[in-house]
Amino acid sequence: MMNISNALENLVDEFSRLPQIGRKTALRLAMYITRQPAEDVERFSRALSEVKARIRFCSVCCNITEDEVCMICRSGSRKGNQICVVEEPQDVFAIEKTNEYKGKYHVLHGIISPLDGIGPNDIRIKELLARLGSNNGDNVEELILALNPTVEGETTILYLSKLLKPLDLKITRIARGIPVGSDLEFADEVTLAKAFEGRILI
Amino acid sequence: MMNISNALENLVDEFSRLPQIGRKTALRLAMYITRQPAEDVERFSRALSEVKARIRFCSVCCNITEDEVCMICRSGSRKGNQICVVEEPQDVFAIEKTNEYKGKYHVLHGIISPLDGIGPNDIRIKELLARLGSNNGDNVEELILALNPTVEGETTILYLSKLLKPLDLKITRIARGIPVGSDLEFADEVTLAKAFEGRILI
Repeated sequence: MMNISNALENLVDEFSRLPQIGRKTALRLAMYITRQPAEDVERFSRALSEVKARIRFCSVCCNITEDEVCMICRSGSRKGNQICVVEEPQDVFAIEKTNEYKGKYHVLHGIISPLDGIGPNDIRIKELLARLGSNNGDNVEELILALNPTVEGETTILYLSKLLKPLDLKITRIARGIPVGSDLEFADEVTLAKAFEGRILI
Repeated sequence: MMNISNALENLVDEFSRLPQIGRKTALRLAMYITRQPAEDVERFSRALSEVKARIRFCSVCCNITEDEVCMICRSGSRKGNQICVVEEPQDVFAIEKTNEYKGKYHVLHGIISPLDGIGPNDIRIKELLARLGSNNGDNVEELILALNPTVEGETTILYLSKLLKPLDLKITRIARGIPVGSDLEFADEVTLAKAFEGRILI
């Protein structure tokens, strides 16, 4: 950028720190910002500060919220006896969109990945244990593991199912199979095998 | 987002206003922000405000700068008798990277596009005329039109060449042809025709 402007250089640096934003895109975004009205840029700048000031983790399910306890955990209309365990808050949004699940959630904020040095203590597993343990106030009966069907997801499922076995809960995992609208002939063999394994009576 | 947080919602809105960032990417970026240390987010927030406070347009060439007159316009080692006309500041960065061009620039900040309602008065053409007009202090001899070979670029080239004809300048345009490293058989016919037209003696 030929030392045109330190301010611009800094903003390009900041944009390029975002995930999946390269130098070229960062420059394009920074240039876009220079063309916007000052009040719009101020609003963006404030939105950044505020999200950091306001967002915290629900003390029960660890999902993001602006309150001590999140809306789903507080809601009287959600079944407390089911907990769906997910990796990230985005997974909660995705599941909520289906309008099918009426239980509660637990957000791990990560997944066990020995290759990346992420072990059970680096994700919110002890918070999950606390919910299920002595003060199982919700009388949790079923734990639905809705983790991604990747190596890390499988590792985490294996770890959790062993860890929680003594608690005498129903532990389930969501089905692996052919995505709706996709074509069977394009499915990989593992997915297809799992789809057969998980076949249901019609 | 189920009213999880207004602050998060606002940040997602801001990110999704950026060019080529959709709702889903905006959510991913906002979630990334929530996971960053507060001081990093503050630095990003400040970088946004500062770029807007500091960046202005060079009073000579209209390129972005933090000064009244940009470094290239001030430089004694750049030839003043050549002006390369480009659409955006990014084009200056791209041309500077080649290390081949030693003249000066003029940034139009847009291109004539009747379909988008952008006419000659919406881009920095009168500033260019002022440089070439009565007080042609730099004794400009050649104007290199380095505009994109699109319909809008061609329209702008046509407009500028007619407008500037009376000034008795050498007006050139950069070559259209086969990109280096690319394969002739994949070139479209117009590009190939232009490559023949623009052939040079070896």
